Amino acid sequence: MSEIKAYGAHSATEELVPLKIERRELQPKDIAIEILYCGVCHSDIHTARSEWGPARYPVVPGHEIIGKVTAVGAEVKNFKPGDAVGVGCLVDSCQKCPACEDGLEQYCENGATYTYGSPDKISGGHTLGGYSEKIVVDESFVLRIPENLDLAKTAPLLCAGITTWSPLKHWNVKAGEKIGVVGLGGLGHMGIKFARAMGAHVVMITTSEKKGEDAKKLGADEVLISKDSEAMKSHASSFDFLLNTIPVNHDVEPYLNLLKRDKTMVLVGAIEPLSNVNGGTLIRKRRNLAGSLIGGIRETQEMLDFCGEHQVLPEVEMIDMQGINQAWDRVVKADVKYRFVIDMKSLK
Amino acid sequence: MSEIKAYGAHSATEELVPLKIERRELQPKDIAIEILYCGVCHSDIHTARSEWGPARYPVVPGHEIIGKVTAVGAEVKNFKPGDAVGVGCLVDSCQKCPACEDGLEQYCENGATYTYGSPDKISGGHTLGGYSEKIVVDESFVLRIPENLDLAKTAPLLCAGITTWSPLKHWNVKAGEKIGVVGLGGLGHMGIKFARAMGAHVVMITTSEKKGEDAKKLGADEVLISKDSEAMKSHASSFDFLLNTIPVNHDVEPYLNLLKRDKTMVLVGAIEPLSNVNGGTLIRKRRNLAGSLIGGIRETQEMLDFCGEHQVLPEVEMIDMQGINQAWDRVVKADVKYRFVIDMKSLK
Repeated sequence: MSEIKAYGAHSATEELVPLKIERRELQPKDIAIEILYCGVCHSDIHTARSEWGPARYPVVPGHEIIGKVTAVGAEVKNFKPGDAVGVGCLVDSCQKCPACEDGLEQYCENGATYTYGSPDKISGGHTLGGYSEKIVVDESFVLRIPENLDLAKTAPLLCAGITTWSPLKHWNVKAGEKIGVVGLGGLGHMGIKFARAMGAHVVMITTSEKKGEDAKKLGADEVLISKDSEAMKSHASSFDFLLNTIPVNHDVEPYLNLLKRDKTMVLVGAIEPLSNVNGGTLIRKRRNLAGSLIGGIRETQEMLDFCGEHQVLPEVEMIDMQGINQAWDRVVKADVKYRFVIDMKSLK
Repeated sequence: MSEIKAYGAHSATEELVPLKIERRELQPKDIAIEILYCGVCHSDIHTARSEWGPARYPVVPGHEIIGKVTAVGAEVKNFKPGDAVGVGCLVDSCQKCPACEDGLEQYCENGATYTYGSPDKISGGHTLGGYSEKIVVDESFVLRIPENLDLAKTAPLLCAGITTWSPLKHWNVKAGEKIGVVGLGGLGHMGIKFARAMGAHVVMITTSEKKGEDAKKLGADEVLISKDSEAMKSHASSFDFLLNTIPVNHDVEPYLNLLKRDKTMVLVGAIEPLSNVNGGTLIRKRRNLAGSLIGGIRETQEMLDFCGEHQVLPEVEMIDMQGINQAWDRVVKADVKYRFVIDMKSLK
């Protein structure tokens, strides 16, 4: 075990403070990573504040991790010191159940180990995330970063990126299809970029004219203001797919009504009871309402490779570790375009 | 036009009474059918009582029609007098839109013509259903009844049958899969029979021990009492498909939680806002909540042919036309096993 610097919360009501943590000794299949950048996800805040159930303290958040390999275990085959790598929301899973065998470790039937706040099967205690200098991770959960990507900007791909990429691929979004992205935040802005890069006709669906303008700059072909009932009516039954990134409960009925027959709206944000799902709206056009959780390791690598090929990168605002509490305040107010990334040099 | 006997409602609050209606003259592609049997569907009641919006009166209900061809128009190719035929919920559609081209006339983008209560594009006025002696229908909406089927029992296949068959086929239910049927009424009892005939392991999911016993007699392999939270827990994440026939709003969350990853619960009854659809339950296992509306003409014929091959038939209770109001009272109280069928001889 080696003691390293981190930022974390000691309770649900405190701000994040500097603290010292330990990382496990390198296991045969482990990779030691010096963390260069870590994205700031709203989940970090929900977890640290025990908003998603009681957290294990201290919480060291951070699951959009980019770094360089500093050492590898004796049995590691695919990485070497100096490699640019990423770690997302997952650091372990059973590797044996049907979900793991399908490359969908996020749905591990024996419980995936999340990058922070999960019981740690190897070192005991609970996992501690990327708001820190260093992390040690089984190589099966380490991603390779294409050489031509700007490392600082790559961090948010590990959660915001894969969470939107995975459903777009799973529901087989194709060039020429009319795809709606509902909600413009960290996830929504990646949804626009991916759907556009896949060749779709991308419609930003938002309550806000201002966000609509921003979405166009990010690549949206069209904007649909969801408060405009005439506009919503004119788009009824016209969408091939809806990626709904709204992170809280909302009235989903007006969006479901936008889907063509047999098409799907997938929720990636709202993990709570939803207002107004009308059975009739599903029945009348054989529509589907689905959910999707982050993505598996294999598809995360595919996404990173795609981003390398197509130069798809998030919009980020760089911060120092010391500015994290102010950054969180701004995340809560949705005042960020579109993802904070911590420059981990500031922690040294 | 010829005047024929029927039963119908003159207003939302009256009982059904005998009345005289007219049927259009035979068009070149029309078939004239002497009605032998007509099933009684809960939709008949909802429509006649204007519970699904203001009805066009008089309402002559009935969309589970079995009869014999008495005459055919000059251009009719596939039927001849004497043929045993059926007419379900649909009697016309645009025949040109993508849905019609896919053989899914129930989703016609220009509006399908329902067997009763729809504007009639040919004769003007509105359509009048099967609680009558005779009907005239375009041959494209007429089904052929396999010779070995008992005609009286066949009637409910035209709505209760196809409404459950269509989603089981669309979601590709296979032999050996674990399929849940939620709710045991006219639709649920057909769901059990079809899923069983397809080789699935069928679980009846019901609030009632008594209905569970009945379901076993109908072919269910297993019963899950939905009020038993321990039993529900032990079946969590274990179903390949759920056919939800509950006809009213209900808490769908406990059922969604029964689905394996990537699997679907399809609603065929509840055409209203649903209680408690939890986004998290969909997201955590990439589950789907969908709806399905009756079925197209092509698949209705496939279902009838399947029923002929496998001798799958509904359980029916025969009534005379004069007993319709008492029968409706019993339908409303869910006191029927599992479908009333009117013997139309009683109307002569």
